[in-house]
Amino acid sequence: MGFRLTPQDTSFFTLFTAQAQLLVDATSELTRFLEVDPSKRQAVADRLKELEHAADDATHELINRVNSSFITPFDREDIHALAASLDDCMDLIEETGDLIVLYRVGDIPEGLAEQFEILARMAEVTAEAMPRLRSLKDLKSYWIEINRLENQADTLHRKQVAALFTNSPDPVELIKVKAIVDGFEDAADAFEKVAHVVEGIAVKES
Amino acid sequence: MGFRLTPQDTSFFTLFTAQAQLLVDATSELTRFLEVDPSKRQAVADRLKELEHAADDATHELINRVNSSFITPFDREDIHALAASLDDCMDLIEETGDLIVLYRVGDIPEGLAEQFEILARMAEVTAEAMPRLRSLKDLKSYWIEINRLENQADTLHRKQVAALFTNSPDPVELIKVKAIVDGFEDAADAFEKVAHVVEGIAVKES
Amino acid sequence: MGFRLTPQDTSFFTLFTAQAQLLVDATSELTRFLEVDPSKRQAVADRLKELEHAADDATHELINRVNSSFITPFDREDIHALAASLDDCMDLIEETGDLIVLYRVGDIPEGLAEQFEILARMAEVTAEAMPRLRSLKDLKSYWIEINRLENQADTLHRKQVAALFTNSPDPVELIKVKAIVDGFEDAADAFEKVAHVVEGIAVKES
Repeated sequence: MGFRLTPQDTSFFTLFTAQAQLLVDATSELTRFLEVDPSKRQAVADRLKELEHAADDATHELINRVNSSFITPFDREDIHALAASLDDCMDLIEETGDLIVLYRVGDIPEGLAEQFEILARMAEVTAEAMPRLRSLKDLKSYWIEINRLENQADTLHRKQVAALFTNSPDPVELIKVKAIVDGFEDAADAFEKVAHVVEGIAVKES
Repeated sequence: MGFRLTPQDTSFFTLFTAQAQLLVDATSELTRFLEVDPSKRQAVADRLKELEHAADDATHELINRVNSSFITPFDREDIHALAASLDDCMDLIEETGDLIVLYRVGDIPEGLAEQFEILARMAEVTAEAMPRLRSLKDLKSYWIEINRLENQADTLHRKQVAALFTNSPDPVELIKVKAIVDGFEDAADAFEKVAHVVEGIAVKES
Repeated sequence: MGFRLTPQDTSFFTLFTAQAQLLVDATSELTRFLEVDPSKRQAVADRLKELEHAADDATHELINRVNSSFITPFDREDIHALAASLDDCMDLIEETGDLIVLYRVGDIPEGLAEQFEILARMAEVTAEAMPRLRSLKDLKSYWIEINRLENQADTLHRKQVAALFTNSPDPVELIKVKAIVDGFEDAADAFEKVAHVVEGIAVKES
C-alpha cells in the first residue's frame, strides 16, 4: 500500500489523473527494455510490477471513495468502469513486459520500439485528458487522437506479425515473439477502451 | 468520409440498420476470397477496408446524433454501446480478412466457406432486427437465432482447429491458419455481443 | 431443458446461486480429467456439456424472470450483466475442457492440477457470495479473495507457459498445450469479471 495521496489531492479527477500518470511512468519504463543488457531486464520487469501495484492501490482508493461519497461527479458505475479500464491498461503493460523476461527472448522483436512510442503517446494523451473530465469539455480531441494512435498501432502490429511469418523463423521463437507483440497490441486496444468509456460518460452527462 | 445518409434516413433506427447493412456487405465480400485468384485477394481486402471506413463514419454519425439530440429512443449509453458493438463486428471482419493477404496464406483453410456462410447469416439476421428496435417487439427470435448461429460457428471452429492439429501441418502454417479461423470465430462472438446488447436494452426498456 | 427449480427456489438470489453452483460442479468435474484414462476423457467433456446446457437454462430463466418481474432487487441491466458474466465462466470451462479431448493431448500439461484447484476455489467463493447479494453486505471479502485467486492463477499461468518454452517441445504440441492453459487462465479472468460486476452493483446500490 505504498501509494498515498496528499489531502489536497483527493478529488476523483486527481485520482484518475494519478492512475493515468502511472501509465505514463510504465510506458516510459518499457523503453528501458530496448536500452539495457538482457541480464538487466528483470529489473525493468520488477519496476513495472511496482507500478502495477501502485495502480492497484490507486484503483482501490477510487472505489473506496465512490463508496464513501455522498455525491459523485458522475454515475458511480461510470467511475467504476473508468477506473477498471485504466487498470486494464496497466495490467496488460506489466504482463507483456514480464513475458520479455519469462520467455527469455533473444533479440528484441522488430517494431517494438515503435509499439512502445505509440503506447507512451497514448498514456500521455490519456493523462492530459483526465483533468478535463471535470468540465467534460475538450474531450473529443482526446478520443480522436486515441483512435488515430490505435489505428497506427494496429497497422504496425499487422506488419510486425506478417514480417515474423515472412522471415520464416524458428516456430517456437515465432510463438514467443507473437505473444509479445500481440500483448502490446492488446494494451493499445485497452487505451482505446478507456477512451470509449470517457466518450460514453461525455455522451451520457452532456 | 464517403458515407452520407440522405436527409429522410436520419432516425437512430435507420442509422443502426445502415451499420448492420454494411456488415451484410462485408460478409458478402468475404466470400470473394474463395472465388478469386490469390493475386486478386488484395482487392478484396481493399474493399473490406472501404466498408470498415464507411462503418466508422456511420458510428460517428450515430454518436454525434446522440450528442445533439434532446430526446433519444433509449438511454444514450445504450445507443453508444450498440453502435460500438456493431463496429466491433466490422473491425474483426476487416482485420481477419486482411490477414489472409498479409500472411500470404497458400490454400484457403478448410471450413472457411462454412464460417463465411454463418457470418453472412448473422449479419442478415442482425440487419433485419435493427428496425424492430423501434417497437422493441419481436426481438427475441433475433437473439435466439444469433445464439443458435454462434453455437454452430463454435462447433465448426473447434473441428477446424482440431483438424489442423490432426493433419500435423507445418507449424508456421498452422499458426497462420489458426489465427485466421480464430479471428472469424471472434467475429461470430462479436455478433453475439451485439445480440446481448440488444437483449439488455429490451430487458431494461420493457 | 433439464434444469428446473422447485417453486420455493425462485428468487433472483437463488437463481444466481444455482448458476454459481453449476460452476462448482463443472470445476469439480474438470479434476476428473486428471484421474481418468485418456479413453474416458470424452465422458468428462460430455458431462461438462450437460452442465453448460443446465447453465444456459438457468441464465434464460433469470432473463425471463427479469422480463416478467414488476420489481427487481437491483437494476435490470445489472441482473442481466451478472447472469451473462456467470455464463461466460461456464462457457470457457466447457470449451477448454473440450479442447483436451479434441486436440488429443497426450500428457496432461504441467500445472493443470493447480489451475483446476484455483478455478474450483473461485467457483466455491462465488457460490458462497451469491446469497449475500440480498443484503449487499459482506461482499468485499468475496471480491478481495477472487482478486487474490486471480493473481495466483496469473502467476501460475505465466510459469506454465515459460516452462513450455524452456522445455523446447514439439511446436505443434506447444501450440495445443498453450491453447489449453490459456483457456483456463481466461476462465479465471472470467470469474474476476463476475466479481467486478458484483463490485459494480454494490457500489451503485450502496
